[in-house]
Amino acid sequence: MEYKFSKKLSELKPSAIREIFKSLTDPEIISFAAGNPSPESFPVEELSRISADIFARFSTAALQYSITEGYSPLREEIAKRQKAKFGIGTDGDATMVVSGGQQGIELACKAFCNEGDAVICENPSFIGALNSFRSNGARTVGVELEADGISIEGLEKALKDNPDAKLLYIIPTFQNPSGITTSLRKRRAVLELAKKYDIIILEDNPYGELRFKGEDVPTIKSMDTEGRVIYCSSFSKILSAGMRVGFVIANEKIIQKMAVAKQGEDVHTNIFFQMLCHRYMTECDLDAHISRINALYLRKCDLMLDSIDRYVPADKVTFTRPEGGLFIWGTVRDCTDVSPIVQKLIAKKVAVVPGATFNCDTSAPSSCFRLNYSTPSDEQIVEGIKRLGEVFAEL
Amino acid sequence: MEYKFSKKLSELKPSAIREIFKSLTDPEIISFAAGNPSPESFPVEELSRISADIFARFSTAALQYSITEGYSPLREEIAKRQKAKFGIGTDGDATMVVSGGQQGIELACKAFCNEGDAVICENPSFIGALNSFRSNGARTVGVELEADGISIEGLEKALKDNPDAKLLYIIPTFQNPSGITTSLRKRRAVLELAKKYDIIILEDNPYGELRFKGEDVPTIKSMDTEGRVIYCSSFSKILSAGMRVGFVIANEKIIQKMAVAKQGEDVHTNIFFQMLCHRYMTECDLDAHISRINALYLRKCDLMLDSIDRYVPADKVTFTRPEGGLFIWGTVRDCTDVSPIVQKLIAKKVAVVPGATFNCDTSAPSSCFRLNYSTPSDEQIVEGIKRLGEVFAEL
Repeated sequence: MEYKFSKKLSELKPSAIREIFKSLTDPEIISFAAGNPSPESFPVEELSRISADIFARFSTAALQYSITEGYSPLREEIAKRQKAKFGIGTDGDATMVVSGGQQGIELACKAFCNEGDAVICENPSFIGALNSFRSNGARTVGVELEADGISIEGLEKALKDNPDAKLLYIIPTFQNPSGITTSLRKRRAVLELAKKYDIIILEDNPYGELRFKGEDVPTIKSMDTEGRVIYCSSFSKILSAGMRVGFVIANEKIIQKMAVAKQGEDVHTNIFFQMLCHRYMTECDLDAHISRINALYLRKCDLMLDSIDRYVPADKVTFTRPEGGLFIWGTVRDCTDVSPIVQKLIAKKVAVVPGATFNCDTSAPSSCFRLNYSTPSDEQIVEGIKRLGEVFAEL
Repeated sequence: MEYKFSKKLSELKPSAIREIFKSLTDPEIISFAAGNPSPESFPVEELSRISADIFARFSTAALQYSITEGYSPLREEIAKRQKAKFGIGTDGDATMVVSGGQQGIELACKAFCNEGDAVICENPSFIGALNSFRSNGARTVGVELEADGISIEGLEKALKDNPDAKLLYIIPTFQNPSGITTSLRKRRAVLELAKKYDIIILEDNPYGELRFKGEDVPTIKSMDTEGRVIYCSSFSKILSAGMRVGFVIANEKIIQKMAVAKQGEDVHTNIFFQMLCHRYMTECDLDAHISRINALYLRKCDLMLDSIDRYVPADKVTFTRPEGGLFIWGTVRDCTDVSPIVQKLIAKKVAVVPGATFNCDTSAPSSCFRLNYSTPSDEQIVEGIKRLGEVFAEL
């Protein structure tokens, strides 16, 4: 039979990344297309030990229904850490556990956007968030992303042009896909503009703990005194992505609305793993663990950048040099559409993600592509970048 | 600051059940208000043993990002079991793992309903589903629930009156809150009406495995030859509610749309517990485990009904006598609003859920209340029903 799907979903396609992943079944392909943390970042031994103890002593609580806002001891630990490390949280704020940072983004959209309302985003931006907004019937409006963060002029124009914009979605630190970190000056300017045009900021910070060089730049949420910023993050990049545990910190009125929406989505987040996260945070040395992850990513990122310097013609393509996170962003000179190059890379058995995937305007081409260094092995990084260099040398 | 929440969420309140739960912090209260499975239904030892083995041998897969549709070996086991046990699944169907049955309900609404569209429901119905529809901007239209299931005349009238109805939500087996099972005749009639008015049926069957008396009635999905029925169920009542693992079986085109929406909500369901479910299904005796749960619930349900027969004046209140599931439904004679009685019960330290909680029209009163027998101890069941009888005797 013919199905009449909702307007918001009838035109939404599965993300292009998923399609690329299908081509990755070829075992000879070197993939720089993933967004996965390294499996070495999972503290398996500790999680296994704590898990056995939860089954032995707390199985009823760990396997029974729980409350929507999340396991209270975990919420408290999260609030404590985010306050200490990122200056986040005021008296009016509350913390909610969500099923991965993705759910925090989705719930924020549900809480504030009616169908047809706009969400202003950096362009390019995280495809998962863009599709989440679209699947709630919101329009995504892109603002150019510059080397030091979102264009402030572009943002003001977008705010003027879209009075129905309800959210400004921004990943200020080690942005996905670009790896760009927004400067302190621009963070302040973003908050000022949000006040001026009375819009809620949705600050997504999944990579903030993954700084392996340089100094932390204050989060926008840490400058927020009036409850204008919804802050999302997760344990995906520091403990386990597969367990789907993230969190949101925002004014308690916002958290209450998001909790009502979350109840309708999944009642609550897997409580066993919430307890596991709490026990890990209180019994193990999370900071030491994160330091080990960052040492690994520093080495892998440097290896990829060194290989780029060595093998890729600098007059044909430029790359961001991130101080953390998971991604490097390549921009091809004198190019409007990188697709044919991505196809040539696939023929050489190297997978990257074409920049158009991350565009707010899904029909717009891109001269950029995303590289990931956390997932491939050292040998794959060197060999893959060598092949990438060959493709550019032949252009 | 003042927040301008979305229309769909600005009027939605947290469920009344949550408010009742807050009054349950009093340890002297005997609660028949829960919807929880008995902790005795969690096979802790087996889950613990398999869990240790997953950490020891498959930790990378169990902690890394995974695919949205779910862990393939689990999807296959689910499809196999549902086909064998409930006659569910045709060549055109696909199975998707979701984060509890609740998410299946929510995704179905997102896939089919635009803001303002109607979802037709049994009245009363599961509050979690009603709030999920509302939080997606859909209107809930209630059709009277009779002793043998939804009123067929009422359903046809609702379909005629609401041409914008996109889904018919129905819990045909051991309905929540009423415990009522829809007769085979009415199931067939529902499917015929759905065809006549071209509406999608969302069949929710979280309690289908919990039959402790009588014979299974065929699922509506098992009669569906054209892909009109979306079937939702979960492991919450047979393995663990807290792990949040459910599933949807529907035409593959519907599953594709729901998967796109799920990707925007939580990327995928906790993969560790998906692997745990699969291993449990293939290595342990799930049927024997379910038989033990059902023997327990039969005893508890009978104990509650026997206590009712003994202590509650039959001329003042009648009760359903379910053959499975978790709930008994009381209807007070010559009563329009049960609220004052519920308050008297609270004063006697007995908690029940007032029927109005489950009404599609949130302002409508109810002469009914819900009792749960899976959570309280045997002593609590007898003592609580004795107190309930005292309250009715005093009326």
